[in-house]
Amino acid sequence: MRLCGHVLFALFVTLAAGAQQKADGAGSGTAPARAYVAAHQQEILKEFQDFLALPNLASDLPNIQKNADALLKMTERRGLKTRLLTMENVPPVVLAEAPSDPSRRTVIFYAHYDGQPVQRDQWKQDPWQPTLVKGSDERIYARSASDDKAAVVGLLAAYDALKASRAEPSVNIKFFFEGEEEAGSPHLGQILKRYADQLNADLWVICDGPIYQNGQPLLVFGSRGVVTAQITTFGPNRPLHSGHYGNWAPNPIVELAHLISRLRTTEGEILIPHFSDSVRPLTAGEKKALENLPNLDPQLKQEFQLGRTEGTRPVAEEIMKPSFNLDRIEGGGYGPNPANAVPSTATAYIDIRMVPNQTPEIVRGQMEKYLIDMGYFLVHQPPTPEERRSHARVVQITWSSGYPPQRTDIDAPVSRAFVQAVRAAAGTSLVVMPTLGGSTPAFMFEQQFKKPVIGLPIANFDNNQHAANENIRIDYLFNGIASYTAVFTNLGNFWH
Amino acid sequence: MRLCGHVLFALFVTLAAGAQQKADGAGSGTAPARAYVAAHQQEILKEFQDFLALPNLASDLPNIQKNADALLKMTERRGLKTRLLTMENVPPVVLAEAPSDPSRRTVIFYAHYDGQPVQRDQWKQDPWQPTLVKGSDERIYARSASDDKAAVVGLLAAYDALKASRAEPSVNIKFFFEGEEEAGSPHLGQILKRYADQLNADLWVICDGPIYQNGQPLLVFGSRGVVTAQITTFGPNRPLHSGHYGNWAPNPIVELAHLISRLRTTEGEILIPHFSDSVRPLTAGEKKALENLPNLDPQLKQEFQLGRTEGTRPVAEEIMKPSFNLDRIEGGGYGPNPANAVPSTATAYIDIRMVPNQTPEIVRGQMEKYLIDMGYFLVHQPPTPEERRSHARVVQITWSSGYPPQRTDIDAPVSRAFVQAVRAAAGTSLVVMPTLGGSTPAFMFEQQFKKPVIGLPIANFDNNQHAANENIRIDYLFNGIASYTAVFTNLGNFWH
Repeated sequence: MRLCGHVLFALFVTLAAGAQQKADGAGSGTAPARAYVAAHQQEILKEFQDFLALPNLASDLPNIQKNADALLKMTERRGLKTRLLTMENVPPVVLAEAPSDPSRRTVIFYAHYDGQPVQRDQWKQDPWQPTLVKGSDERIYARSASDDKAAVVGLLAAYDALKASRAEPSVNIKFFFEGEEEAGSPHLGQILKRYADQLNADLWVICDGPIYQNGQPLLVFGSRGVVTAQITTFGPNRPLHSGHYGNWAPNPIVELAHLISRLRTTEGEILIPHFSDSVRPLTAGEKKALENLPNLDPQLKQEFQLGRTEGTRPVAEEIMKPSFNLDRIEGGGYGPNPANAVPSTATAYIDIRMVPNQTPEIVRGQMEKYLIDMGYFLVHQPPTPEERRSHARVVQITWSSGYPPQRTDIDAPVSRAFVQAVRAAAGTSLVVMPTLGGSTPAFMFEQQFKKPVIGLPIANFDNNQHAANENIRIDYLFNGIASYTAVFTNLGNFWH
Repeated sequence: MRLCGHVLFALFVTLAAGAQQKADGAGSGTAPARAYVAAHQQEILKEFQDFLALPNLASDLPNIQKNADALLKMTERRGLKTRLLTMENVPPVVLAEAPSDPSRRTVIFYAHYDGQPVQRDQWKQDPWQPTLVKGSDERIYARSASDDKAAVVGLLAAYDALKASRAEPSVNIKFFFEGEEEAGSPHLGQILKRYADQLNADLWVICDGPIYQNGQPLLVFGSRGVVTAQITTFGPNRPLHSGHYGNWAPNPIVELAHLISRLRTTEGEILIPHFSDSVRPLTAGEKKALENLPNLDPQLKQEFQLGRTEGTRPVAEEIMKPSFNLDRIEGGGYGPNPANAVPSTATAYIDIRMVPNQTPEIVRGQMEKYLIDMGYFLVHQPPTPEERRSHARVVQITWSSGYPPQRTDIDAPVSRAFVQAVRAAAGTSLVVMPTLGGSTPAFMFEQQFKKPVIGLPIANFDNNQHAANENIRIDYLFNGIASYTAVFTNLGNFWH
């Protein structure tokens, strides 16, 4: 699971207490899969660890190719028709198809086999020397153990379990394994377009990410979009002594502070006019799902040492709204002591999370209009000396291209069927979230194919994703295999 | 001239055009001094360059002692009674006294012989290998050329000129040469106290700093006080993914931006209640001086590329008021790309410039009361987890001890006499400023001795003070010598 291309050490909470998988395994139809896993535990872990031993940075083309080759063998060994979807100097997508039946619907299961860069000195071990640590919650430590090779190996093991049970799959199964997700999926859109004719499906399932913070299994029906911007305000053309020129030379930090305070409140309210006009109301199904979500706020506030939260609702509800976040602010340099000077510039880095039907284009337009209406002279490049001299207030803004949001109708037949299918493995503890707070490339599948996309994560939330000592809990992996098998076996039966 | 202990590269403006000394030398009584300087030019420059060749960082005790020893010789050679005012492991003050007459008033002329640290790679030459560069404005380049060895050598040359003229000085003359001004004068207060009985005087004259930005000679009757603070706001105890927790976990940058916007406006207005209550009104003399000040705003706005200024009056008037400056802001880390995360803290560095009768104590009290009244839980140390959890809004503030402001009554007999005395050398172009915008240790002399303090700078404003390639214009040095001699000769005669 990529998070806007940035390494995040604190993506999901490490909750020391209460961290236990609540899946009870009591669902119908998962007994054969669980029996298979129990019987083939060593085999599954062996394949997993062999695969984890291959260094897998997307930028390391020789090694990433070795991963793709290994995956090719792993899928062909299972009788899956496999091909590499290639572009020059790009990690290939490994596309593997099970024998299909035209009378059944087709589902593509997405996972990725590349991993985040590592800072070796922060690891307790070689990140590509997978290490099994026994204990009350047995784990394997390695880069990509949870993000996202667990899903790759888990899906293949689930397919083995399905075959071993001699049950017919309820849907046609394809596996789509990407090789540069952690690098920002820079070619995913092009690959989807180029190979569109081989990617026909009725549903995409994103097998990536961790489950609910309290340890309950999770389904996710969307993700927020994101667009980032840098905003710079200007003072004198060089730092000026604050005694001689302070409160005469305009201070860009003060300008920026006032600007930020006019963009949003400390309660999270966004002050850009018409910002929420394109936000569609929650559906009845979304409202119901939110009502059923366990409220983790007390636990999270304790964990994060928070005396208050922004907004008025629990975090899982707040993420149904757009958000305006300040990622960084800087002005006046770095180092042990600041100069007592009026700085020349100040810069804020923001990220805006969007929900349907907002788009990066709409948000950019609203924000720029607001800045102009506030009286700023807006530039997209560093202003010239003449621009600085001739405008009282200059602001430079630089946008990223951004992702749109994506949300699958939680009430659609496919969604209901999916919940029912997974519940067979997860039982009543299954948590259904209308959206993830973060942003994923799920919209690319929706944009290209106009098909629903559903997220089915399996990793423990305390997996150190993107950080050192990444790990997966073995029981979570095995529960995940049961969930995958449940989807293979049941989805088509519930999907009317 | 130290500026709150910080190296400032842009202290005074480099104004390419219009940079010419306007002193016309037409004042009465300076002809002998100018004749002396003309006749002894080479001798003066030789002594100056020998002195500049001695490395003079206050922290470099063996070399700073060599400077003091050289100075001892330079003063004794002139028949001045000299002693070193010492403290262990502290650069000594060199105190030199001319023969005195109890019927005359006594004036101590202050300068400093230590210099700022150097960044050698930014210099065109060895900073302690003084280099004379001929041209339309002949200059000597070296560390301390202008700040402040020009004053030291200039004062001694002025004394030579006085003696050569066989005129009696109008006041008793003492020279007080400090050796750690650029390190923040950390022991000056103690030295003044310890050697108070040797430092009796009716006036202190601070011979340091550059003249007016348009090149006119300058007298300064005060400086603003300064106190600095760091203000930190708090979000989650570690950075949290902005998609999953943004606009739920309180954003400390947003909190800080709103806080700053409640502390001051973008027009420089300070919003802390009662902040200006202790500011004494301008005197009639100060008002008159301000009216006579050349307005440099158009020139400075052009130079600094400013489309507006804060406040409503020219810079020289604005600095008569207190100021609230943001020196630096930071939050969300450094590096090429910010994480899309809610940061854990954000910090602003402020400096507050005070004018009479404000004090650091008064300002600290007002600011803290305001923060508490705004609803912040105020701490002076990093808050504990329990403090973070139990208070909605926590702010940490850390203060410097600060300097009080200092201002000598511009209408006092000594002040009027001083203006008249210097005008003898500088003519009608003399600029009289009621205060410097910056902060100096002048208050220490006032506090210890309850005597007036007046600033008499001589250096060109484009002297690269504190930066690489520091320099002094030779004509400014020679004009300075004429000014000093004018004070020696005339001050007592005008001072009734």
